Amino acid sequence: MRQKIYSVIIAGGRGTRFWPLSRSRKPKQLLKLFGPKTLLRETADRVLSLGGSDQTLIVTVAEQLNAVRKELSGLPRKNFLAEPEGKNTAPCIGLAALEVFARDPDSVMIILPADHWVSDVPAFRRTLKTAAELAVRHDRLVTIGIQPTYPETGYGYIVKGEPLAGAETADAYQVKRFKEKPDAKTARRLLRNGSLWNAGIFAWKASTLLALMERYQPAIHNSLVKIANATGGKSLATPAPTLSSVIAREYKKVPSISIDHAILEPAGSEGRVLTVPGEFGWSDVGSWAAVHQMSGRDPDGNASNGRWLALGSKDCLIHAPDRLVVLLGMRDAFIVDTPDALLVGDLKRSQEVRDLVGELKKRGYDSYTIDGFRSRG
Amino acid sequence: MRQKIYSVIIAGGRGTRFWPLSRSRKPKQLLKLFGPKTLLRETADRVLSLGGSDQTLIVTVAEQLNAVRKELSGLPRKNFLAEPEGKNTAPCIGLAALEVFARDPDSVMIILPADHWVSDVPAFRRTLKTAAELAVRHDRLVTIGIQPTYPETGYGYIVKGEPLAGAETADAYQVKRFKEKPDAKTARRLLRNGSLWNAGIFAWKASTLLALMERYQPAIHNSLVKIANATGGKSLATPAPTLSSVIAREYKKVPSISIDHAILEPAGSEGRVLTVPGEFGWSDVGSWAAVHQMSGRDPDGNASNGRWLALGSKDCLIHAPDRLVVLLGMRDAFIVDTPDALLVGDLKRSQEVRDLVGELKKRGYDSYTIDGFRSRG
Repeated sequence: MRQKIYSVIIAGGRGTRFWPLSRSRKPKQLLKLFGPKTLLRETADRVLSLGGSDQTLIVTVAEQLNAVRKELSGLPRKNFLAEPEGKNTAPCIGLAALEVFARDPDSVMIILPADHWVSDVPAFRRTLKTAAELAVRHDRLVTIGIQPTYPETGYGYIVKGEPLAGAETADAYQVKRFKEKPDAKTARRLLRNGSLWNAGIFAWKASTLLALMERYQPAIHNSLVKIANATGGKSLATPAPTLSSVIAREYKKVPSISIDHAILEPAGSEGRVLTVPGEFGWSDVGSWAAVHQMSGRDPDGNASNGRWLALGSKDCLIHAPDRLVVLLGMRDAFIVDTPDALLVGDLKRSQEVRDLVGELKKRGYDSYTIDGFRSRG
Repeated sequence: MRQKIYSVIIAGGRGTRFWPLSRSRKPKQLLKLFGPKTLLRETADRVLSLGGSDQTLIVTVAEQLNAVRKELSGLPRKNFLAEPEGKNTAPCIGLAALEVFARDPDSVMIILPADHWVSDVPAFRRTLKTAAELAVRHDRLVTIGIQPTYPETGYGYIVKGEPLAGAETADAYQVKRFKEKPDAKTARRLLRNGSLWNAGIFAWKASTLLALMERYQPAIHNSLVKIANATGGKSLATPAPTLSSVIAREYKKVPSISIDHAILEPAGSEGRVLTVPGEFGWSDVGSWAAVHQMSGRDPDGNASNGRWLALGSKDCLIHAPDRLVVLLGMRDAFIVDTPDALLVGDLKRSQEVRDLVGELKKRGYDSYTIDGFRSRG
């Protein structure tokens, strides 16, 4: 493929589901949930071989820019784009498309969330390459569809249509439609009919995306044009005195909308979206229960990242890098130890950690949700 | 009663059941399990009104002497007796009897473990006074018998005999016999026949105890005589150059035996022991489960000594003075937070904490059982 591949890592998440480890200044992508590297760093390392560090871009929000840049200090400074504020994924990906297009109007971009987990990295890279090739050859939006292993109700689904004619290298399908987080019954039906999980991993030419943005989201496209004009059609890293104020002004105007709603769904109903099934061991790491599932565990199902001892305990997760943790007779528990706060919970309820953060604020424990976190580097 | 009452607090315990809070240099009696005061301090405060600080003696072991003295700095320095090594309770109480006898050969002593919990302090004091009066009037050994509330198998029982003729002030009984920790079936039978828990709280004249020591434990008595000779029959606090070496030498020889086995059981079978039933809310605080039971709890049964938040959690105990602890969906759990180690366990298994300490040593975590504990004062 002669087109350049740009990997675009979306790193703007805010962490509430991993409290007390995550705080507002320490979102999920900056956590070390599976070893010595942050999720962001693992994501970058996974795709670095696709286009090299020059073609690995990061989009984050202004308040995380310094931390993200520091974490990925091996990447060129100009490869970090900062949104002035979070407006969901459509404006963010539009901004990235502008940058990729400015660098090479012919190139293809792969969109990746910064905070996922992948076990089979070679298979992951093969799938991304296939998706990029199809995106170029067919001028389509290509989604990676994860082969589901159970009827998860927390994910969106991709309903497959016809197999793509002439897809020699791998199986690929038209996307019939997208189905947002289904109820349990619908999830089971989707599993039976061969639907795939929408992992938020996409490939498309920058030009394709910008054209469809104009078609389906003229307001966002209009703002993107104004931003592009402020750079003179060059890289967003080009010194341009008014650029940041133009971006800030346009971001105030653009709607907060996901790329799925904004582009993929309408494009899907017009037959412009393909999906490539991927089987590479994937999780969006949505809760401590997912961390437990994806971690190496002892024969009793216990996982820990520090010094520990468990007696009569099964299927527990310990996140406590700095202290000895001893469990006695615990089942399905998770323990998250930070310098100022300790969470002990039932893994089956780890989705509720998000609610905890609200509850803490209500009880006057705001400081524990925002600040006070001393990083251990 | 013209006889002086000496309160003798036995403070030689070693803490393993309260790991990680208790360490070998921080035994149970020096823990703050129920509030701002250590169990030792609470014990001393409970009995101080009986004879004043001059008549409150502490027997501890040499390695704890400084910590115990510091904790009870209001007591005269000469009221702290240190055993060179722990030899169970009979030699310890013998030594205390020697001291009490030297100060006043007519006086009565009340023996109290340093690490118990009592809720109704006025009733407790009334019971002790009654016991002391009976001990003097009848020249007997008097045990406090706790009215049992359930068939506990971890305590010893006192089987009552005939009511004491002429006990006007309170009910008191001959002791028929003692029954060590019974099996469950026996415990239920003991409960039905009106037996009492042996709380290890006793009253007797020092002279009575020393005479019975000579009768039943001539070896210990012989050692006590040698120690008394080294002081010239004066207080153990009297400066005597060879005293500590004599005590050390005699302690090497004396058998390690409990006061129950050594004196109370043989004396009981000769009709020399009485019991006074006591109902003052008592626990020997044998485990974290007991701490939970004796602590103030919220309507969900949760108890904590620090900042905390519990969502969907019931009947949990949090001991974490220094950090925010959040529980999510926990039941019957206990959390003990110390600077270097964290224990999370099932309250129903808190008896096994003792085994944990052995397991820690086996796994090379010795340092967590001995040292490394930074006191928070």
